[in-house]
Amino acid sequence: MVVGFSLSFGTPIGIQVDGEKYGIIGNPLDYLFFNNVSVLPHKDLASTIPFVLFALFQMKFAVITPALITGSFAERVRFISYLVFMVLFSLFIYMPLCHMVWHPDGLLNKYFGVKDFAGGTVVHMSAGFAALAGALFLGKRKKPHHEPSNISYVILGTGMLWFGWFGFNAGSALAANATAAMAFGTTTIASASAMMTWIFFDRINGRKVSAMGACIGAVVGLVAITPGAGFISIAESIFVGFISAIVSNLMLNWKKLKKIDDTLDVFACHGVGGIMGMILTAILAHGENASLLHGGFEVFAHHMMALVLVCIFSFFGSLLLFKITNSIIELRVSENSEEIGLDASQHDESLNW
Amino acid sequence: MVVGFSLSFGTPIGIQVDGEKYGIIGNPLDYLFFNNVSVLPHKDLASTIPFVLFALFQMKFAVITPALITGSFAERVRFISYLVFMVLFSLFIYMPLCHMVWHPDGLLNKYFGVKDFAGGTVVHMSAGFAALAGALFLGKRKKPHHEPSNISYVILGTGMLWFGWFGFNAGSALAANATAAMAFGTTTIASASAMMTWIFFDRINGRKVSAMGACIGAVVGLVAITPGAGFISIAESIFVGFISAIVSNLMLNWKKLKKIDDTLDVFACHGVGGIMGMILTAILAHGENASLLHGGFEVFAHHMMALVLVCIFSFFGSLLLFKITNSIIELRVSENSEEIGLDASQHDESLNW
Amino acid sequence: MVVGFSLSFGTPIGIQVDGEKYGIIGNPLDYLFFNNVSVLPHKDLASTIPFVLFALFQMKFAVITPALITGSFAERVRFISYLVFMVLFSLFIYMPLCHMVWHPDGLLNKYFGVKDFAGGTVVHMSAGFAALAGALFLGKRKKPHHEPSNISYVILGTGMLWFGWFGFNAGSALAANATAAMAFGTTTIASASAMMTWIFFDRINGRKVSAMGACIGAVVGLVAITPGAGFISIAESIFVGFISAIVSNLMLNWKKLKKIDDTLDVFACHGVGGIMGMILTAILAHGENASLLHGGFEVFAHHMMALVLVCIFSFFGSLLLFKITNSIIELRVSENSEEIGLDASQHDESLNW
Repeated sequence: MVVGFSLSFGTPIGIQVDGEKYGIIGNPLDYLFFNNVSVLPHKDLASTIPFVLFALFQMKFAVITPALITGSFAERVRFISYLVFMVLFSLFIYMPLCHMVWHPDGLLNKYFGVKDFAGGTVVHMSAGFAALAGALFLGKRKKPHHEPSNISYVILGTGMLWFGWFGFNAGSALAANATAAMAFGTTTIASASAMMTWIFFDRINGRKVSAMGACIGAVVGLVAITPGAGFISIAESIFVGFISAIVSNLMLNWKKLKKIDDTLDVFACHGVGGIMGMILTAILAHGENASLLHGGFEVFAHHMMALVLVCIFSFFGSLLLFKITNSIIELRVSENSEEIGLDASQHDESLNW
Repeated sequence: MVVGFSLSFGTPIGIQVDGEKYGIIGNPLDYLFFNNVSVLPHKDLASTIPFVLFALFQMKFAVITPALITGSFAERVRFISYLVFMVLFSLFIYMPLCHMVWHPDGLLNKYFGVKDFAGGTVVHMSAGFAALAGALFLGKRKKPHHEPSNISYVILGTGMLWFGWFGFNAGSALAANATAAMAFGTTTIASASAMMTWIFFDRINGRKVSAMGACIGAVVGLVAITPGAGFISIAESIFVGFISAIVSNLMLNWKKLKKIDDTLDVFACHGVGGIMGMILTAILAHGENASLLHGGFEVFAHHMMALVLVCIFSFFGSLLLFKITNSIIELRVSENSEEIGLDASQHDESLNW
Repeated sequence: MVVGFSLSFGTPIGIQVDGEKYGIIGNPLDYLFFNNVSVLPHKDLASTIPFVLFALFQMKFAVITPALITGSFAERVRFISYLVFMVLFSLFIYMPLCHMVWHPDGLLNKYFGVKDFAGGTVVHMSAGFAALAGALFLGKRKKPHHEPSNISYVILGTGMLWFGWFGFNAGSALAANATAAMAFGTTTIASASAMMTWIFFDRINGRKVSAMGACIGAVVGLVAITPGAGFISIAESIFVGFISAIVSNLMLNWKKLKKIDDTLDVFACHGVGGIMGMILTAILAHGENASLLHGGFEVFAHHMMALVLVCIFSFFGSLLLFKITNSIIELRVSENSEEIGLDASQHDESLNW
């Protein structure tokens, strides 16, 4: 096996293995400020919709990912340094992952055969591991607390998230077709299954059935179904929701993990949910490149190797970026600011609610 | 007239009248866990969209109906027994009604000629009468009160409901066509008309014009237009909103009904609104099977008979299911739990809002 | 130049210049209660969708415009007189503007060549100037204050507005085509650009970066991109957001304007944002009728004349209507009512939040 590094201007950066090229990141200057992004379909990336619409759809994935991370170090991060981190994360973690997983010539796609329908690795694993790195790097809050400040907002937010998620998952079919309908179905059912599993698993473990639990469960289900949404059947999606809710619930209540102050449990929900989703996709997925259940052990093994690579890349890459950001502008606010609360100390919001 | 009961494995259960078969409930095992639900259109049920999408659309109706019922016995029901009731209600009230009204061979559809565009009987009348039965069966709260706990949430919820309702009503055209556009129009206008009627009717009766009244009025209008949304003109929908708002307003303020502690006035809104909608549809509907206004007295008479049957079936059927549920797990929480409030006693929610 | 006034029954009212007719307002009786509004496309107004859908889409614009005005005199207006004003405004300001700008034969469209993709003049300038007139006419609140009562609601409302705005702007393509995709893109990016500009401009001026500022900035960007959404490139929309955020921010913090008690800064956001949008559209727009940047000075000059006409018409027209309304029912509530708060004194809402 001959491996080389490939970088020539105007083409994606990648590596060469035995003469074949595998992309790592596209050339960002190609489409800077939507330059060259046509209203016609793009034959390789989006043959069914205007390329500009595909680019905007991709943008929404890129927007949501750093937003997910925030939850892990909420109530102690400096806003400006967070902005710096977001830019670095987007450029050096998100974009390579996106290119490697979703571009037809991407390394994880073409070499490892990774299947990720709507962002299990690209969005949720990357956000989950960056969140874990962030919570560790910034350290605990002075007074960690886990109670939601307003349960009504949690329910409302979960509802809006669930609704928007249909756009991500069904939308990833890039057409109003049968695949979109199936992805809509698996997304609905996996989430409902995880929600019910979560509250009953809570009850079995001596906790009460709660709206809070229902909301966390629903989100975990949404995360877990995301990579396989268009590749599995609705009956299988019940199983995806069930298993991932139990695993995430166990993680969330695991004492060792509780020592890390991940304010909104981003790692337990998005990181673990994303991993579960990728494993289950590699087991259950229908169609080309047989998954484990359909006899493809090699495909499964490749998938698992890719999974480990993504975990390492996202976690250590993010940790490095947190260090770099911190050396530019300190990430953590002053003790005094934290005590007053960031709404007041950082943002001067009028807090009457 | 020769009437017989028809039950053979793999076909819908139904009755036979003069040799012709009329369905009561489909065989639930046929499509268990979305088994056999294809991505191709189904020629009888959904010729324009993938059958799986139709099934998911139907699922949303099935999901919303028990949720509507809850409002009538809020603040005193045990969560687990409520889950049991929901399953029983879905299987023994909702599904037969759905099959009888919406299946081409259904009893109410084929024999009585019932027209229900988007759920006037199937969703709102069934929920309304189950709600009445529930409020009667569970009895009053210890300290009944009717003030909303947060008017902003009421407005927000009404807005989201109104938005989602377009999906139900326009979506029931099963295509992005002229019927969908008309249903969207009648839904918008009937709701707006009912909203304005409600607040002015309040004012005439010595109450002030309020956001609360506007929200109730809007929902009543949405309920009332639902069965006729795709069958009547936009001008007629103004009338539908107007009449049903007045009738529901009178019911809601009727002393005898006020004695029943229907926490969120589910019966006055959904039950009465649903009845009004079905009557007005039978009077105004255009198209095949002439309605009363278009000369079809017989059609109207059949419709009214069906209406009475649905009221009896939903009310007494639900009452029976409440009794059965109660004999499994008590429906009402303990006095102590009720006093503390269900959020705390049943669900351990953290209540900081 | 021979100018005449044209009014004959059943045709739009307009003026005649050199024998050519330019419409001012259509005959409202033509389509009263959606009479004659067909489910077939209308060849001049909406050749791609059912005419009834076009009419309902137009209705949403007509509904939102008076709602925008309300913010300027909130906390002191009598509800019933406000209803009267809304009807008068819709008939005598909104509808003529709508006809003149959007009808192919309309005065501002055909004579002045005004381009307004999704409501820069029709919706935002008219609402902004009516708001200014209203704030001036009603006078200050007894105790003006500018703090939002609940910042979470502000964020939630901004999010819902942003989402709905896609419907207005992309929807104005009247088809799911490339223009709609472009309008969706420019709308997203202009708004994001204005949001970021606003918070950094705040910071440069010694204020803190805040969620409140981000929300105002986003709305200003949405307003400013509205008239040009389908006519400019995504790169240009960054510039539109940037410039209009700075101008609106300066206006909002301008001492002289602060003396006017425009409760929700409707004029600074919608009025100024709308003007900026119209100017930038006349500078940047691609396609037929070359804009300033594409060599069409005359087109630009006509646009500016039209802009001034719209300002004058909206402001003085609204002022007159406020006077007329006030002579029917007093617009301002009693001092006592204002002190108690309108929720309690006008609407009897139960205020537990």
